[in-house]
Amino acid sequence: MGRVYLDWNATAPLRPEARAAMMAACDIIGNPSSIHGEGRAARAVVEAARREVAALAGAEPRNVTFTSGGTEANLLALAPGHQLDGAQTAWLLHSAIEHPSVRAGGRFPSESVAEVPVEVDGRVDLSALDRRLAARAESGGRPLVSIMLANNETGVIQPVQEAARIVHGWGGILHVDAIQAAGKIPCDIDALGADLMTLSGHKLGGPKGVGAVIVRHQGLHLADPLFKGGGQERGARAGTENVTGIAGFGAAAAAAAAARGDEAARLAALRDRLEAGLKAIAPDVVIFGASAERLPNTTCFAVPDVRAEIALIALDLDGIAVSSGSACSSGKVAASHVLDAMRIERALARCAIRVSLGFSTTGQEVHSLLEAWNKLARALLKRTHGIAA
Amino acid sequence: MGRVYLDWNATAPLRPEARAAMMAACDIIGNPSSIHGEGRAARAVVEAARREVAALAGAEPRNVTFTSGGTEANLLALAPGHQLDGAQTAWLLHSAIEHPSVRAGGRFPSESVAEVPVEVDGRVDLSALDRRLAARAESGGRPLVSIMLANNETGVIQPVQEAARIVHGWGGILHVDAIQAAGKIPCDIDALGADLMTLSGHKLGGPKGVGAVIVRHQGLHLADPLFKGGGQERGARAGTENVTGIAGFGAAAAAAAAARGDEAARLAALRDRLEAGLKAIAPDVVIFGASAERLPNTTCFAVPDVRAEIALIALDLDGIAVSSGSACSSGKVAASHVLDAMRIERALARCAIRVSLGFSTTGQEVHSLLEAWNKLARALLKRTHGIAA
Repeated sequence: MGRVYLDWNATAPLRPEARAAMMAACDIIGNPSSIHGEGRAARAVVEAARREVAALAGAEPRNVTFTSGGTEANLLALAPGHQLDGAQTAWLLHSAIEHPSVRAGGRFPSESVAEVPVEVDGRVDLSALDRRLAARAESGGRPLVSIMLANNETGVIQPVQEAARIVHGWGGILHVDAIQAAGKIPCDIDALGADLMTLSGHKLGGPKGVGAVIVRHQGLHLADPLFKGGGQERGARAGTENVTGIAGFGAAAAAAAAARGDEAARLAALRDRLEAGLKAIAPDVVIFGASAERLPNTTCFAVPDVRAEIALIALDLDGIAVSSGSACSSGKVAASHVLDAMRIERALARCAIRVSLGFSTTGQEVHSLLEAWNKLARALLKRTHGIAA
Repeated sequence: MGRVYLDWNATAPLRPEARAAMMAACDIIGNPSSIHGEGRAARAVVEAARREVAALAGAEPRNVTFTSGGTEANLLALAPGHQLDGAQTAWLLHSAIEHPSVRAGGRFPSESVAEVPVEVDGRVDLSALDRRLAARAESGGRPLVSIMLANNETGVIQPVQEAARIVHGWGGILHVDAIQAAGKIPCDIDALGADLMTLSGHKLGGPKGVGAVIVRHQGLHLADPLFKGGGQERGARAGTENVTGIAGFGAAAAAAAAARGDEAARLAALRDRLEAGLKAIAPDVVIFGASAERLPNTTCFAVPDVRAEIALIALDLDGIAVSSGSACSSGKVAASHVLDAMRIERALARCAIRVSLGFSTTGQEVHSLLEAWNKLARALLKRTHGIAA
């Protein structure tokens, strides 16, 4: 038996459609800004992908700006100076469980950034959101609010539609980081009420190194671009387009959109089987965010006294790849800011393991994880407590 | 006969080595930040490419930071706040012929940016550089000077070593945009005396959407990163690494370095044959920068009254791709800032055509261009002047 990859939220293997599109794009030799035939062929690849990515979000292709990934997309989205009806975004409010690239505050000075807490179930606290917006309403300037559609560590889906109503009621603009959710659950920008949305190619089966910022309506004028120079992306983002990566992103977006319903049902069933198995192995397992609606592919759990870093290494040696949180922070000792925000005790948070599934995950792979986990957890608990398990 | 692509300075077709490396990287499913086997395999790809790119510039791998391309690399390089021996970069001086992403001034406020003129041969005016530095010396703060190694439109190679001596004499830091030169002429960061160097993958046969900033010495501490979040690239540039693109960039850098001497000699011979042919067709042809040392693969020329935009379209219909300047601006009507800086008359500048060759360019392709050009130039001149040509 080969390796078992169950860390799809860190990065998803390439979808075959994305791979094929990238191979084809490797033969397109032109620069999309060139007016000759080779240039126009490259332009056509970029624009076809733009339509595919726009379709995933129910947006207009002209409102999609390609970036080098989710981090750059979030940085472009989170800026003072976005204009709507003459008023500019002036301060930023983000939830406590956002990705580090959002929590870094984008281009806002730190004194113009505030945080909204989440409930213990991992969902943003909507009454706190309302209170924070009310408290700052007199200071003037449009608030920009950033709330992710689904959390990357726990999979908890956020109440974005309700948040949108509150944000818009206070004259604010809502940015939705849909990077972990896109392709797994619906992310129609209109239905969500998002004004800005960000996506990343590699989380939905496209390549790493490409993402997008999507604007819902033409009336929202984004702040000055970060990259200036050649005037690409209608002036919003200079730099020769990553044609191969964009082609892969577009194909992955189309494939994910087409397969979403079927994949979601299949993965949710596998995930439920996994969680039932975890409970059977250790009845004191804690599944974070289990009382909230979650992504169908994600489970984040802990068994007291089974330390994550030890478990991860043991599972890796057993041929199974899982994570202790987000990939960005999995190499670090720092506690998860997400579990902290959910008021999980640090001792338990240090035992948190994230298992995330994807389109090619099989029942046999889930079974292999449960077998390995059973062996490992019992051995570790026996050592810690001296119990016969 | 198929299409003839002679616009390699806009973007180079993928080198076979780059394509193979990208294909292999498509099978690497991990996130380089993950600690499991799949993550470590992705990390190994990134670090191998870092060594290959570092070798092209004669730099330490740890001093290479990957970016999404040349534009982002230039933006990272051109920042106030780079520290060396306690003094920070405070203002920017760049030549008048730099790429638009450099002329945009990076992260400097516009009042802290000044320009250095070039001589009529297209080389930066070194005495003007010295005077500009002297004039600002009293204002305090380290100057950051940006001079490209070779110009993308004319191919003129800049006197970077001499400029480095002048810049360092005034306590300044030198950034060299080697994007168009790398892989075509030597670009050893030590030999050039550059403190910062920027590269782009797709100009040397790698993929679009990947570039690098290279620092010469550990003592130079770069300003705060632009992308904050996951802490990748040793904290210098957050965001999941473009593993496929980086793999292709590394392979292209290695292939370009290995083939450079042979390719340069072959391309220079083809270019000289092309220029001799152009002179034979129209003796009044002007070859821009011909009195200076140039890249072996580039010629930028004009025949009075043969307008570039008409010629480009006619050549494209004849199956030949050339450019009227940089790819970024080739879709625009604006005059070339490079030819403007060289004091070329606007009427002649509007006739400027850039032909750029690469590793797969053949003598037959150059012959095809000359045949098409002969037909076209004579027809256009006949129409303009009513002469029997």
